[in-house]
Amino acid sequence: MLLRIDHVGIACHDLEEKIEFYESTFGLTVVSREINEEQGVREAMLHVADGAQGASYVQLMEPLHPDTVVGKFLAKRGEGVHHIGYGVADVAKALEEVGAKGVRLIDERPRHGSMGASIAFLHPKDVGGVLTELVQTARH
Amino acid sequence: MLLRIDHVGIACHDLEEKIEFYESTFGLTVVSREINEEQGVREAMLHVADGAQGASYVQLMEPLHPDTVVGKFLAKRGEGVHHIGYGVADVAKALEEVGAKGVRLIDERPRHGSMGASIAFLHPKDVGGVLTELVQTARH
Repeated sequence: MLLRIDHVGIACHDLEEKIEFYESTFGLTVVSREINEEQGVREAMLHVADGAQGASYVQLMEPLHPDTVVGKFLAKRGEGVHHIGYGVADVAKALEEVGAKGVRLIDERPRHGSMGASIAFLHPKDVGGVLTELVQTARH
Repeated sequence: MLLRIDHVGIACHDLEEKIEFYESTFGLTVVSREINEEQGVREAMLHVADGAQGASYVQLMEPLHPDTVVGKFLAKRGEGVHHIGYGVADVAKALEEVGAKGVRLIDERPRHGSMGASIAFLHPKDVGGVLTELVQTARH
């Protein structure tokens, strides 16, 4: 079901500072910047690698307000890995399969993610403490 | 410098239970099991994807004892993402470059990692709260 590690989602206090760090330290390149009001984040996708089944990214996220999911995460745990996104061919089908195994779904239906992708989150309590995102890349 | 997301390192209480979960829920396959006495973990690598620059894995880790790095992590934070490993061509060279940028190195020199790789960890305080591992795959 999982085609690739699509991205590592990292929560930070200062998006521009962290972009500069990942660019200058590791040579990554920003390929997309977005504000996602629904998720309450300002974010950037930094390209790591291409693969037969799609690319991999580091996703840096800064909360728009303290009273958002990522804002609360930062207040509780500090900066660090917030979630892991895995590529799937068909996110609606994957959700159905995963849900049928008894994993609770945060999103019962796919919603809009970064760079036009269709995404859905699985409940971390049912995935060993890992907030897990399924990502179906937008077709161009 | 970073060629790929090599692996997501996930700390868990029960390795066999989590392997079974990742296999049955997501269709991943175990490609390696090891006990790493130095790191104090029993671990498994589950294959996610192949890429031009190497493969990507989910690494599941169960501490051998509570008084280990991963054991203490579990006691403090519970199960979840412990570190992120990125592939590099030459880990010694990458360490030198990253160290020169002012990032503190947990490992001044590469050491033995999973599946014969040469690895080194960077200090999470200098990488935005992310325990970051550099991985040079073993040549076969």
